[in-house]
Amino acid sequence: MPRYKLIISYDGTHYSGWQIQPNAPSIQQHIQEAVSKCHGGNQLAVKGSGRTDAGVHAIAQVAHFDSDRQHDTQRLQFMLNGILPRDIRVKQVEEVSKQFHSQYSAVGKEYHYHLHLDKVSDPFQRLYCWHVIRPLDLPLLREAASLFIGTHDFTSFTNESSSGTAARNPVRTLYRLDIIPTDCGLRLEFEGNGFLYRMVRNIVGCLVHTASTRRSLEEIVKAFEAKDRQQAPRGAPPQGLFLVRVRYNDEQDHEQGTNTE
Amino acid sequence: MPRYKLIISYDGTHYSGWQIQPNAPSIQQHIQEAVSKCHGGNQLAVKGSGRTDAGVHAIAQVAHFDSDRQHDTQRLQFMLNGILPRDIRVKQVEEVSKQFHSQYSAVGKEYHYHLHLDKVSDPFQRLYCWHVIRPLDLPLLREAASLFIGTHDFTSFTNESSSGTAARNPVRTLYRLDIIPTDCGLRLEFEGNGFLYRMVRNIVGCLVHTASTRRSLEEIVKAFEAKDRQQAPRGAPPQGLFLVRVRYNDEQDHEQGTNTE
Repeated sequence: MPRYKLIISYDGTHYSGWQIQPNAPSIQQHIQEAVSKCHGGNQLAVKGSGRTDAGVHAIAQVAHFDSDRQHDTQRLQFMLNGILPRDIRVKQVEEVSKQFHSQYSAVGKEYHYHLHLDKVSDPFQRLYCWHVIRPLDLPLLREAASLFIGTHDFTSFTNESSSGTAARNPVRTLYRLDIIPTDCGLRLEFEGNGFLYRMVRNIVGCLVHTASTRRSLEEIVKAFEAKDRQQAPRGAPPQGLFLVRVRYNDEQDHEQGTNTE
Repeated sequence: MPRYKLIISYDGTHYSGWQIQPNAPSIQQHIQEAVSKCHGGNQLAVKGSGRTDAGVHAIAQVAHFDSDRQHDTQRLQFMLNGILPRDIRVKQVEEVSKQFHSQYSAVGKEYHYHLHLDKVSDPFQRLYCWHVIRPLDLPLLREAASLFIGTHDFTSFTNESSSGTAARNPVRTLYRLDIIPTDCGLRLEFEGNGFLYRMVRNIVGCLVHTASTRRSLEEIVKAFEAKDRQQAPRGAPPQGLFLVRVRYNDEQDHEQGTNTE
């Protein structure tokens, strides 16, 4: 039973997200059906490194599955892409050891969030950026971003329910949050050891709120301390968000990402 | 009756093209309806610099209409964009003299055609590039391109019917045809005094055919001489094509185009 790792790129516009759910088109379901077709219809489970929400994109999502047969990886990639819709592409197929697990072996992730800041929105950016018309105070944005870097309890910046029986540890480490100017706005690059549900979008929402209304940085400090999602500004919309990379130990970097700009 | 010039950007994916036609969604119809709504429902005709086909995009299409009232151009732009779907945007509104006509005053146009040349297609390029898997002989592509520059009878490279009663003069001048490397392929930039129906896509189809099958340049010379569309290779698909600029005399360049890459 060899295990195969897939690196997958998708335009999330027309999907309800990564995760399989009833009566809604998901990326995971398409992948799983394509993988099953390549195994004579045998239902095989495909596990991803984590979910992405409806409208969120991926340059290099990682998933894995256990096969009942040995594959030529190039041929398998070609077959999968022949079955999948054109807004989902398998960028790479690799045989991995049984120790590898797309979710549990991940030691870090990188997300990019794209802001479009022109006065008039752009037809070609509408599905891939958040169009923000309010002027942003860039030095304030950078200062605010620096407050998120490091190890923090991100309870106020996640929509995960903390009252659930299996509430996850809300402490995460953000290694970097870089703000990169682009042709028509900014790209916010997040790299961390892991991200809670909606964490990137909620941080972006807070940064844009702070930099567009010139709020005091003290409000962000207080939002952290409150450990309450209600005490932080609303999150950013999904279409600006891209999962760019999933990091694993003992491997080469996954430089699969082609820049989308 | 002031005349207004509009510069319009659109993602052509979901439209049957620029031109109004029965039972099909066109960009012209959306613009005309939005303009009419800004005039209390008075039906006003909006004329474009020329047609674009289904799936073809525009960075800066130009159109004009005669109004029954004086407008604040910024406010008119804002109103139009409030009515239009998000894949059509008015980038600029300007009052012009009655001598200006978006089609008849045009002295040149610029089109870009995007080729995506990675082995695996890209979900984010699928609506904006032609994905060509066959390897291209780049020196041959450049040589072939040079044959199209200058003044020629482009009958073999247009789908305009030459048997019609009002057949247009098929002679056009191509000022430049530049081949620019991009992150994932090539951008072919065409600038000329005017373009016949499907001319850019038919030239691109011929260039890719020549460079991927290593045909002799002699075949292109013969195709020109034949003055017969059937003697040239098939055209390129629509989604790689962008109308980038329409040139007029006595005006500043329309540097409205934001590069889409």
